[in-house]
Amino acid sequence: MINSDTICALATPSGGAMGIVRVSGPDAIRITNKLFSKDISQAKGYSLHYGVFSDTRHNPIDEVMVSVFRTPHSYTGEDATEISFHGSPYVLRLALQALIDAGCRQARPGEYTMRAYQNGKMDLSQAEAVADLVSSTNQATHKLALSQLKGHFSNELATLRDQFLNITSLLELELDFSDHEELEFANRDELLQLASRIDDRIVSLAHSFKVGQAVKAGIPVAIIGRTNVGKSTLLNRLLHEDKAIVSNIHGTTRDTIEDTTDIHGLTFRFIDTAGIRHTDDQIEQLGIRRSYQKLQEAAIVLYMTDGETVDDAFHDIVTYCEGKKIIIVQNKIDQAKTPIRSQEYEVLLISAKLGTGISNLEESLYKAANIPAITENDVIVTNARHYEALKLAHENLTRVIAGINANLSADLLSEDLKACLDNLADITGKGRITPQETLNNIFAHFCIGK
Amino acid sequence: MINSDTICALATPSGGAMGIVRVSGPDAIRITNKLFSKDISQAKGYSLHYGVFSDTRHNPIDEVMVSVFRTPHSYTGEDATEISFHGSPYVLRLALQALIDAGCRQARPGEYTMRAYQNGKMDLSQAEAVADLVSSTNQATHKLALSQLKGHFSNELATLRDQFLNITSLLELELDFSDHEELEFANRDELLQLASRIDDRIVSLAHSFKVGQAVKAGIPVAIIGRTNVGKSTLLNRLLHEDKAIVSNIHGTTRDTIEDTTDIHGLTFRFIDTAGIRHTDDQIEQLGIRRSYQKLQEAAIVLYMTDGETVDDAFHDIVTYCEGKKIIIVQNKIDQAKTPIRSQEYEVLLISAKLGTGISNLEESLYKAANIPAITENDVIVTNARHYEALKLAHENLTRVIAGINANLSADLLSEDLKACLDNLADITGKGRITPQETLNNIFAHFCIGK
Repeated sequence: MINSDTICALATPSGGAMGIVRVSGPDAIRITNKLFSKDISQAKGYSLHYGVFSDTRHNPIDEVMVSVFRTPHSYTGEDATEISFHGSPYVLRLALQALIDAGCRQARPGEYTMRAYQNGKMDLSQAEAVADLVSSTNQATHKLALSQLKGHFSNELATLRDQFLNITSLLELELDFSDHEELEFANRDELLQLASRIDDRIVSLAHSFKVGQAVKAGIPVAIIGRTNVGKSTLLNRLLHEDKAIVSNIHGTTRDTIEDTTDIHGLTFRFIDTAGIRHTDDQIEQLGIRRSYQKLQEAAIVLYMTDGETVDDAFHDIVTYCEGKKIIIVQNKIDQAKTPIRSQEYEVLLISAKLGTGISNLEESLYKAANIPAITENDVIVTNARHYEALKLAHENLTRVIAGINANLSADLLSEDLKACLDNLADITGKGRITPQETLNNIFAHFCIGK
Repeated sequence: MINSDTICALATPSGGAMGIVRVSGPDAIRITNKLFSKDISQAKGYSLHYGVFSDTRHNPIDEVMVSVFRTPHSYTGEDATEISFHGSPYVLRLALQALIDAGCRQARPGEYTMRAYQNGKMDLSQAEAVADLVSSTNQATHKLALSQLKGHFSNELATLRDQFLNITSLLELELDFSDHEELEFANRDELLQLASRIDDRIVSLAHSFKVGQAVKAGIPVAIIGRTNVGKSTLLNRLLHEDKAIVSNIHGTTRDTIEDTTDIHGLTFRFIDTAGIRHTDDQIEQLGIRRSYQKLQEAAIVLYMTDGETVDDAFHDIVTYCEGKKIIIVQNKIDQAKTPIRSQEYEVLLISAKLGTGISNLEESLYKAANIPAITENDVIVTNARHYEALKLAHENLTRVIAGINANLSADLLSEDLKACLDNLADITGKGRITPQETLNNIFAHFCIGK
């Protein structure tokens, strides 16, 4: 075991019916036993025990249920207990104090998962998936986190690593026989094929980050148009139903869902853009230009009007929105308007006030997002750290491929190959020592008790 | 078993590292089994199982730990499971939905504890102690709740009930022999002694409610004095340290501790009184009188001044504070004041600004509260429902005692005796059927999942 100290933390927010305290480390069972009315010193792993939990001076704190786990069969891989208290903040404070008095140290954020990684219970990308799972808010983020936690990404990387080792052994063969002048670089074609195949996969994984990021951060949508065309009413329409559902969940604050909505399990995030007014005033025009610049953040732009044609502003907007999906939304269609027709852009007729056409609009947003349906078996990169590593791997591999093409000798290729392997190893933290600083960065974003 | 349906609920607030879902009822194990990757249909009680939890269409939701409990050895006395998820609100929502789809019903607040009561796992006063324990915020409320949960109050009531049954059997003896004219009311003295002893205990329990209520609601303290004598500074001093401690606890909001402070494990609650100014204006005087009336809520009044004598207002205050503990607090003592002397009242010299004398003041507050040190074995009534029942019991018993003294016959006494027994039975909900409405009232104050 890597860690010699025993840590404790509250794993649930206090204020509920129950509160769970986790203890992990070489002394987890001995320390818990000291404070517990039953003798669990010899208890088997995966066993449950009911009794009284007291402080170090034998003052009873609560009637509790203790789960016992024995190394390596626990979350951290260490000896561990989980103690289930009544959810009083006061009781839980006493409990943590008692554990600390008995020899535990308060855990740092993410320290349980860090230990799980250090003890080989999961690799780094799986550890990161734990944090993603805890913060998942919809079907897409949930499935991606679950896929990564299950190790689908890790398996993919392991396959790539095996293929790399193939290249390495082919190159070693070259080196071994390099004294024999008759041995030409006979397997260079094979090498090239192998390297290209790996590179293709690395590039495709790196590309998937675009989807992964959109899913995780939400697809940015701008609603733009002149003042009073009904932008706020539309926004409320789009936000309304989801808010009602979310507010059913205990502990979900409205803040976190402000201006996002879920459509078919995907999050759409609305960007705040100021209204557009027609003006000759130069200073005001500057303000409007700034609004247009905010459009850069959007992937989808809803241009909204209540007229029978698009106005001048639309053409300005188009120039600012290259590569973005633009949808024309014609509002107040209940007031018998002539529908706008466009060859180039999708036009949707709605009444934000009455709710007409809103579900069509949602379908269009979902389609415009262009996110493939995600299953829990898909490998999609969602983490910027992984993306950076893949980009570096691609750069190094590009040099390897160029070297193979240039008939560079094996020993000249090996450094870039090694760098490339290291880049992939950095993602899982396996096969290469991850600096403590990197680990601290990763786990600092976890909550305490995880 | 009384309940034929199976209930589920989130037992921890979402937003932490873990989230616990509780399932209880005749189908708890069967329903959990349906959604779980391992077969737990034959699992023993008090066993733990790791696996994947899915929805009814086999979409994986999370990797979980399931605790299995078999009737009657569970919190509710029913078959039950507890499922430990990653603490994502989204995951927990999916999990509850899956359980409901598989045949569970969402639990009502307090329904687990209500079932525990209905299945004889605890009596009503113990069930109420569960809620008190969850909401306990300091040493005193914690110890009182723990004592009541352990059944000390219930045992006390059981003893009283046995003594009542003694009286009843003595009276029955009388009735049996009432045909024999030679039998005088020979055991009336014994009856009287017994009844008085029971009444003494009932009265003393009812009296303990004063302490119990003060402990539970906090001891009300008013700080009164002219404007600018330093009342706010003193209040901040008294609140400061405790706030710092409390803010260490995850999930504790400042709101709940606004204007209360803990001294030696007792809560003191500060009453908002307007400042006093000397005025001849009749309308303003009315306002000041209203301030004085607010003093009625206080048990302890801190009269604060920065002068070298008490002012006129003090004498007014004294007339409003009969029966209350009044402490004179002379502030700004760092500015070399002549100490106020008083034969009648305690005088404390402080500097709220510098913190001088604050711990003395806290000691004085604690002493003035006059709450005996509480251990987890003490029986102190903390619940208004119990207090009302004890008062009724005392009234009925007073009539019984008067009847014994008046040599009323046994059959005339028996009705009041019976009423008295019923009053005590109402507290524990044992030996008498508790109306569903009363149960609903009691458990509606619980949180969901408890």
